Amino acid sequence: MNILILGGNGFIGSHLTEALRTEHNVTVFDRSPNRFVQECEGVEYIYGDFNNASELKRCLKGKDIVYHLLSTTVPLTANNDPVHDVQSNLIGTINLLDAVSESNVSRFIYTSSGGTVYGNPEYVPIDEKHPCNPIGSYGIIKLTIEKYIKMYSQKNNFTYLIARPSNPYGPRQNFKGDQGLISNYLYKGLIKGEFVIWGDGSAIRDYIYINDLVDFLKIAGLSSKSGIFNVGSGKGRSIKEIIEFLNEIIEEHPVLKYAEKNRYFVEEVVLNIEFVEEEFQWSPKISMKEGLKLHSTWMKSLDIKE
Amino acid sequence: MNILILGGNGFIGSHLTEALRTEHNVTVFDRSPNRFVQECEGVEYIYGDFNNASELKRCLKGKDIVYHLLSTTVPLTANNDPVHDVQSNLIGTINLLDAVSESNVSRFIYTSSGGTVYGNPEYVPIDEKHPCNPIGSYGIIKLTIEKYIKMYSQKNNFTYLIARPSNPYGPRQNFKGDQGLISNYLYKGLIKGEFVIWGDGSAIRDYIYINDLVDFLKIAGLSSKSGIFNVGSGKGRSIKEIIEFLNEIIEEHPVLKYAEKNRYFVEEVVLNIEFVEEEFQWSPKISMKEGLKLHSTWMKSLDIKE
Ligand SMILES: NC(=O)c1ccc[n+]([C@@H]2O[C@H](COP(=O)([O-])OP(=O)(O)OC[C@H]3O[C@@H](n4cnc5c(N)ncnc54)[C@H](O)[C@@H]3O)[C@@H](O)[C@H]2O)c1
Ligand SMILES: NC(=O)c1ccc[n+]([C@@H]2O[C@H](COP(=O)([O-])OP(=O)(O)OC[C@H]3O[C@@H](n4cnc5c(N)ncnc54)[C@H](O)[C@@H]3O)[C@@H](O)[C@H]2O)c1
Repeated sequence: MNILILGGNGFIGSHLTEALRTEHNVTVFDRSPNRFVQECEGVEYIYGDFNNASELKRCLKGKDIVYHLLSTTVPLTANNDPVHDVQSNLIGTINLLDAVSESNVSRFIYTSSGGTVYGNPEYVPIDEKHPCNPIGSYGIIKLTIEKYIKMYSQKNNFTYLIARPSNPYGPRQNFKGDQGLISNYLYKGLIKGEFVIWGDGSAIRDYIYINDLVDFLKIAGLSSKSGIFNVGSGKGRSIKEIIEFLNEIIEEHPVLKYAEKNRYFVEEVVLNIEFVEEEFQWSPKISMKEGLKLHSTWMKSLDIKE
Repeated sequence: MNILILGGNGFIGSHLTEALRTEHNVTVFDRSPNRFVQECEGVEYIYGDFNNASELKRCLKGKDIVYHLLSTTVPLTANNDPVHDVQSNLIGTINLLDAVSESNVSRFIYTSSGGTVYGNPEYVPIDEKHPCNPIGSYGIIKLTIEKYIKMYSQKNNFTYLIARPSNPYGPRQNFKGDQGLISNYLYKGLIKGEFVIWGDGSAIRDYIYINDLVDFLKIAGLSSKSGIFNVGSGKGRSIKEIIEFLNEIIEEHPVLKYAEKNRYFVEEVVLNIEFVEEEFQWSPKISMKEGLKLHSTWMKSLDIKE
């Protein structure tokens, strides 16, 4: 198969590229190289901007499958400039869908967001039928993009799969930014820094190890089932619990600092993954403790000083 | 109260302007005058484009209530250019919400769309808890705008009300365009033309007479309840039924022509209006037959020749 991965040098994209490249012809489209790993042998890399529609068109030539893993915003900061979110992510994706519709692409995979499209859950674990009431721009745009993908797929010749991942973690996740509790905690431990907990540490999330998520994305691309699927572990862990787990593994513990959570902070997200398990015979394989060890080992290998 | 009506020269907006102007200071913002009626005495008219953010900012000065009734697209044609839909309606509204947040406006009313945000209904009558699966760009953007209004209202000092009207009809509705079954039928009768039925005439819609809708919008503006409300008659009528009703009233019947319905055509839309009736002690008052007579009388008064 000829596969295009938009955002293929990102956290999730770089793992997916590695998972697909031995069996398929993979092209990565990204703005910049991955910070932690070199370009993969046998993979074609095209550097450019997502918002350049004619560049995208060229990349699509001869492709069978498109993975759209590119996001120009993250949940915490998207609200600062919703117009940018609309212009870069939404309009960029509509232009992409126009180009896909005119190409021979037969399969389109998108990573939406299980953590933001539902908003404050009415019940947990959250299944795909749960109402979508996102409370911030990031989730609103993810949801809007989902609907355009469905609309374009229905009038054109490609099937689609929308994955709503929970919180992936593992090697190559950004550890200095606004996303990634686990990688940030490990990082703050290594530099003997301060780790900020929003709220009292009781907030619950559903963590999935990167390899499990990528396994699913691989299966999803080669299938032809259309639909929207939660992709998580199906288990909820509080921040406190994660910290306890991590403290058993690492030697250097960061100093804890408590801060008030902001208005966009959802108290509990746990995804119900029965639908995806049934439809794809896929289940996450790596336990929390195993995953945390793998992640921690990688962090240590970086030899971080600051 | 100082009230700004965006799109105040449109079909719905012009009626709302008339309903509010005797008791309030009304300012209308629109691109152009209404085609059928003169400017109202005592109302301030500002002509400009919705996508000029600084113009909007000036209009908001000193206003208490904003009605956002402006749409740059209609359901049937929005899919031809989704990027235009996003750029004009969505980005325009986000800029408006930014300006409203910086103003002293305490109330924001928006007309979404009961006919398109739900998509193909899973059950009828459709209540506000029905899943929103719009199948075309118009409905997708309406839904996205709803979510941004909620987000901005939550972090700023204004309450919001989103009305999801069904199919309004009555004087001043466009009769030559792509919207308005009733006005188009009356028009085609008057010019002895051909009336095109999509499908076999069994498609069901929920029609509400313009004065009933405007009555609700008036109440909604002066309330401070936030939320999303269906606004319709609560009754479903097939195209065939409407034509029978109309044929009893008018003398000249258009020639019927059947055409295949397009993919964006939803078979049945009937809104459940229990929630709005309960919360606002409002109910539609004008019967279908009464409304059709009023509409037909107005159409005749236009002395249409072609
Ligand atoms: N990481 C998570 O916690 C998480 C959770 C759920 C969903 N997702 C979604 O999964 C997808 C991938 O996430 P990730 O964590 O790998 O993100 P990432 O930020 O690591 O990767 C995104 C990639 O897109 C590239 N990119 C950004 N803007 C670009 C532009 N304008 N032009 C070209 N390239 C551009 C970046 O260079 C980066 O390599 C995103 O859509 C994200 O929203 C992520
Ligand atoms: N008419 C219906 O069947 C119906 C049903 C449900 C919801 N709605 C919604 O109700 C609202 C009002 O509908 P309507 O039927 O009165 O529409 P309309 O088209 O009659 O009125 C819209 C007004 O907006 C103005 N306008 C459009 N683009 C503009 C721009 N760029 N700058 C300045 N002015 C601009 C037009 O001049 C017009 O006067 C819309 O939001 C519509 O989506 C209408």
